[in-house]
Amino acid sequence: MASKPPIRAAVLGASGYTGADLIRLAARHPNIAITALIAKGHAGQALAQVFPHLVSLDLPDLVTSDEVDWNKIDVAFCGLPHGTAHTEIRKLPERVKVIDMSADFRLRDSGTYSEWYGGAHSAPELLKGAIYGLTEHYRDEIKTARLVACPGCYPTAVLLALLPLLKTKLIAGEDLIIDAKSGVSGAGRTLKQNILFSEAGEGLSPYGIGNHRHVPEIEQELSLAAGATVTVNFTPHLAPMSRGELCTSYVRLAGKADAAALRKALNEAYAASPFVRVVEEGVIPATQHVRGSNYCHIGVFADRLPGRAIVVSAIDNLVKGSAGQALQNFNLMHGLDETTALEQLPLFP
Amino acid sequence: MASKPPIRAAVLGASGYTGADLIRLAARHPNIAITALIAKGHAGQALAQVFPHLVSLDLPDLVTSDEVDWNKIDVAFCGLPHGTAHTEIRKLPERVKVIDMSADFRLRDSGTYSEWYGGAHSAPELLKGAIYGLTEHYRDEIKTARLVACPGCYPTAVLLALLPLLKTKLIAGEDLIIDAKSGVSGAGRTLKQNILFSEAGEGLSPYGIGNHRHVPEIEQELSLAAGATVTVNFTPHLAPMSRGELCTSYVRLAGKADAAALRKALNEAYAASPFVRVVEEGVIPATQHVRGSNYCHIGVFADRLPGRAIVVSAIDNLVKGSAGQALQNFNLMHGLDETTALEQLPLFP
Amino acid sequence: MASKPPIRAAVLGASGYTGADLIRLAARHPNIAITALIAKGHAGQALAQVFPHLVSLDLPDLVTSDEVDWNKIDVAFCGLPHGTAHTEIRKLPERVKVIDMSADFRLRDSGTYSEWYGGAHSAPELLKGAIYGLTEHYRDEIKTARLVACPGCYPTAVLLALLPLLKTKLIAGEDLIIDAKSGVSGAGRTLKQNILFSEAGEGLSPYGIGNHRHVPEIEQELSLAAGATVTVNFTPHLAPMSRGELCTSYVRLAGKADAAALRKALNEAYAASPFVRVVEEGVIPATQHVRGSNYCHIGVFADRLPGRAIVVSAIDNLVKGSAGQALQNFNLMHGLDETTALEQLPLFP
Amino acid sequence: MASKPPIRAAVLGASGYTGADLIRLAARHPNIAITALIAKGHAGQALAQVFPHLVSLDLPDLVTSDEVDWNKIDVAFCGLPHGTAHTEIRKLPERVKVIDMSADFRLRDSGTYSEWYGGAHSAPELLKGAIYGLTEHYRDEIKTARLVACPGCYPTAVLLALLPLLKTKLIAGEDLIIDAKSGVSGAGRTLKQNILFSEAGEGLSPYGIGNHRHVPEIEQELSLAAGATVTVNFTPHLAPMSRGELCTSYVRLAGKADAAALRKALNEAYAASPFVRVVEEGVIPATQHVRGSNYCHIGVFADRLPGRAIVVSAIDNLVKGSAGQALQNFNLMHGLDETTALEQLPLFP
Repeated sequence: MASKPPIRAAVLGASGYTGADLIRLAARHPNIAITALIAKGHAGQALAQVFPHLVSLDLPDLVTSDEVDWNKIDVAFCGLPHGTAHTEIRKLPERVKVIDMSADFRLRDSGTYSEWYGGAHSAPELLKGAIYGLTEHYRDEIKTARLVACPGCYPTAVLLALLPLLKTKLIAGEDLIIDAKSGVSGAGRTLKQNILFSEAGEGLSPYGIGNHRHVPEIEQELSLAAGATVTVNFTPHLAPMSRGELCTSYVRLAGKADAAALRKALNEAYAASPFVRVVEEGVIPATQHVRGSNYCHIGVFADRLPGRAIVVSAIDNLVKGSAGQALQNFNLMHGLDETTALEQLPLFP
Repeated sequence: MASKPPIRAAVLGASGYTGADLIRLAARHPNIAITALIAKGHAGQALAQVFPHLVSLDLPDLVTSDEVDWNKIDVAFCGLPHGTAHTEIRKLPERVKVIDMSADFRLRDSGTYSEWYGGAHSAPELLKGAIYGLTEHYRDEIKTARLVACPGCYPTAVLLALLPLLKTKLIAGEDLIIDAKSGVSGAGRTLKQNILFSEAGEGLSPYGIGNHRHVPEIEQELSLAAGATVTVNFTPHLAPMSRGELCTSYVRLAGKADAAALRKALNEAYAASPFVRVVEEGVIPATQHVRGSNYCHIGVFADRLPGRAIVVSAIDNLVKGSAGQALQNFNLMHGLDETTALEQLPLFP
Repeated sequence: MASKPPIRAAVLGASGYTGADLIRLAARHPNIAITALIAKGHAGQALAQVFPHLVSLDLPDLVTSDEVDWNKIDVAFCGLPHGTAHTEIRKLPERVKVIDMSADFRLRDSGTYSEWYGGAHSAPELLKGAIYGLTEHYRDEIKTARLVACPGCYPTAVLLALLPLLKTKLIAGEDLIIDAKSGVSGAGRTLKQNILFSEAGEGLSPYGIGNHRHVPEIEQELSLAAGATVTVNFTPHLAPMSRGELCTSYVRLAGKADAAALRKALNEAYAASPFVRVVEEGVIPATQHVRGSNYCHIGVFADRLPGRAIVVSAIDNLVKGSAGQALQNFNLMHGLDETTALEQLPLFP
Repeated sequence: MASKPPIRAAVLGASGYTGADLIRLAARHPNIAITALIAKGHAGQALAQVFPHLVSLDLPDLVTSDEVDWNKIDVAFCGLPHGTAHTEIRKLPERVKVIDMSADFRLRDSGTYSEWYGGAHSAPELLKGAIYGLTEHYRDEIKTARLVACPGCYPTAVLLALLPLLKTKLIAGEDLIIDAKSGVSGAGRTLKQNILFSEAGEGLSPYGIGNHRHVPEIEQELSLAAGATVTVNFTPHLAPMSRGELCTSYVRLAGKADAAALRKALNEAYAASPFVRVVEEGVIPATQHVRGSNYCHIGVFADRLPGRAIVVSAIDNLVKGSAGQALQNFNLMHGLDETTALEQLPLFP
């Protein structure tokens, strides 16, 4: 139905996993024309040299940002590392819509940004206007936004699970313990020893205990939902798989709430959200059941400890946790059906 | 563009990996209405009980074949095990088109079938009319077929690589050594000790040396292409991954042929085939670069041994090696674009 | 140093992973003569038919228990499934020492056993005399025991981390949340769909939420240490690796305790324990760093939530979590150095 | 019975996988005192900072080679990269025995070395005296050697399988096709994109087709055994596992030889070799059955192609393919039992 002229998209950070997954999905979007692929360190190369799995696409070679004729770009997807993203995005013409998958515009407070990411934010004015792109919770704001800051992968899984429960005051804002597990692709494509196959394979360990950069983002949104400052224990673990993220959230129930009440609230919150699925009682979310898709599965379970419950959420960190959600936001921003180009079912096994 | 009434499809063997991947793809096909899901041992269950990753689909529950009103079915995709497939398929009404992903109709000679699979073939008359569904080599026959027997996963990878080379007489029909490696999903979902995670994980070994059931199928088609009896060494290996198949074929060159000539012949053979891609010189096919997609990547390499070359082909065993090719054949049989519902790009990482 | 006559050992359940790992280690023990290998379903087979990796051992063929001349056995290692273990162990002559790796003698109360495992306990009198074989905490009792019930893999990792903290009253006995992750071998070698490579590979999910059978065992020992009833949240997860277990315990600090105090208490508790290592501040335990060894690594971390801390413990589920600890207990029971035949360093990568 | 003074060993390249596995094994050797750990880039660090799995060892910190008092070293194990190894080894005092695990002294001809590895060999005189450390085939020479060049991992697996067959003239020296598969640790610990978990995981592909540096080493030894120049096709593949190497060798039979004759010849060749095991007819070698051990399993299979056979060999690339074989040679060089400190059984699962 792509009768209107296609929307011309540039991808910044086309040599990273986030960029690649965005290209993978956007290339099949009926309304998108991928017009520029930007990857500073790989300028001049064909996309297939960087990502052989995309060899079948007929796309322009990689270029630097300076080589792009931004007059011919309508929207920029940004998969750059934090720190680099804000300096690149501030250079873009005002008429170019920006969907940022980096961390640079997620924290509403530039002081918090500096505290957690180091260095001053170069575009505090843009930060002010940025919309936090957790699609299911900010649809209206996203529709009219110029700059959308897509949530981190962990925050996506955590917030989808907990926001409705805090908003409905079914759980307490204290004592929130979130034990998260991620596949290795979450660490990106930069060469680091701990993500070598021989190091990460057949092993499991926590990392960033107490200081993972997704903490302030999680606390910011939980606090907004609770109407009070929420502090969390967020402990991520690296698991020997490429994709997938599972968050096991241990929550304290408020009043007489129980697992069933939580499930009901989640079901109501996501009744009109095609990608968030509250699984039936007894079904357990698993990363392999959302792999490669934009779905988020959420399950609620009674805790053996009285007055507590367990909420489990699973996503594909590169899709719903990044590129898929970015495209979902793109759809909203352009008046398209939210699911366009995101209908792919999970790849299992 | 699905203006015509949808084609009503039944899936036999809906509880196996092949069936599941067929459903995954067919559910997004604009011209298909999945009307019946048949899985004898799971009749009465919802599809999501068997395959939780398909929970978002609104499909009928699993039933037995007897429960299906076959008058309302236009096409049957069959993912049953060999032996069971032919007995079920022979019961289907003549007007129902059949796309069989089992081994039961691949061997043109019922004697060869009995020899390799044991037991007499219950539908030799159907066997006679069956078309071997290696899409790229039997397009015309497939278009008008009633019963298409999709090749095995290994034969798909091997034949796509070698058929054009034998047809053009660039390689000899003797001394063909095919070292194949497959992910574990190729062994199906039946409980067997050697495919437990703890057994197959972090390990690699050959199996079925000299007697794998895909041998006669490979030899049948290679012989037809060569115009002479071709015997092969086919040695499959089990590798610790879920999906993916890589065949390294060691071939003897005929006359003055060299790797470049082979590459040229393959490029010509597949110039109009969107899913078969002869990779550029120096690029090496890898299963992770076709994962989840219907693509086949083929590379040709000079051998250190004079007068020989190496042909490497990679596919996703469940897609191009089974469900994807089945759907590709479905498209041909129904006058649709060959790529319909198969445009998904590989999932990497 | 094996100047005394060797201790003649029988292994019950020699066809399971626990049995195999016991054989692997015991075969290199200077004081053990493996005299009988019992595996009902495989009687008559050579060990190498069941476990090809042990082909280099010159051991007797597998037999049934009835075929064993128990007069010639000094000690029995039992790797049978729960339920079967107690019925087999009660038949053994009183003079045969028993080191049980099943769950059947771990719960001091036969009522609790029936509640969690179903069915009455057939040997309540043996249960009474059984010693809980958590080596580092029951050395004296183990030395003189006839029947030692080795802890489950999860309880081993949890209890080594938490017992000293409860005993020293540095943490509270309430609000204990234990998020555990295990490799697939923990599920044993029995054929089950969820542990197929294609199902468990590249995926992660919780299981047994709120009702895992290791809960009563954990609570029993924590309660004893605390001198009061302790209830826990214990949530295990299945991770895509063969071996390894990591427990992330979220604890509430008592009084003015902090992470440093916890680390100090653990260091003191295990000063004379060669296999338990409290890692230095800043070092994070990882399953790949204890793989194949009898070591347990424990780390303590400050929590972002005030008044709480995080204790992380990692073991190899089949070694320290089962066969290794069994052998460690064997050493104690026979006046040998605790580390005999357990000196193997972790296998990394 | 380490009554004699311990042999003082230095490890060059202590921060690589080969060095780490040497340390893992040597630390439990009754006659070895690990006296110096050399790792230029990590000098000043504790071993546990580089390899946390070795934290339980009480060893000296890492140093540069210059910091070592070589008068107090009796033997040097060298796990340096090729190119670096020969320049470091030539500096060592003549009285220090050297067991080199690098490629620098494997090729008897310095011209061939330069051709395949680039750059002139800095120690051609040492090269002349070096003994090729394929233990089972050069025992006598190794016993009295000063400098032993341990074979590469692939050559170890290939040569153990093929040397006896060429020496007994049961197979032809032509048309040798060796399809090899290796775990990722074979690529070392150096940061490279293709060995990241997300790149190598769940994937398989060949590499170094026609130009892998182990080719000249394989051909050198096969030629010596055949008494004529042997050229081979050697095609390695990267498989998604950390350890393990499997070589599937497709050989042409000489005269009336058959698989049984080959098996017999191999059995005779290795009758007195504790670590090489010719598996029984029908048993298939698998890398998971030798993991972590010094064993090599070899199987022989009839080929469907007349006049040919298939020889399959499996090793752990870091043990028998490197550190284990190095230690085996050490034992021979010091009059010790060949198996000392190498008795560890394979770790399965």
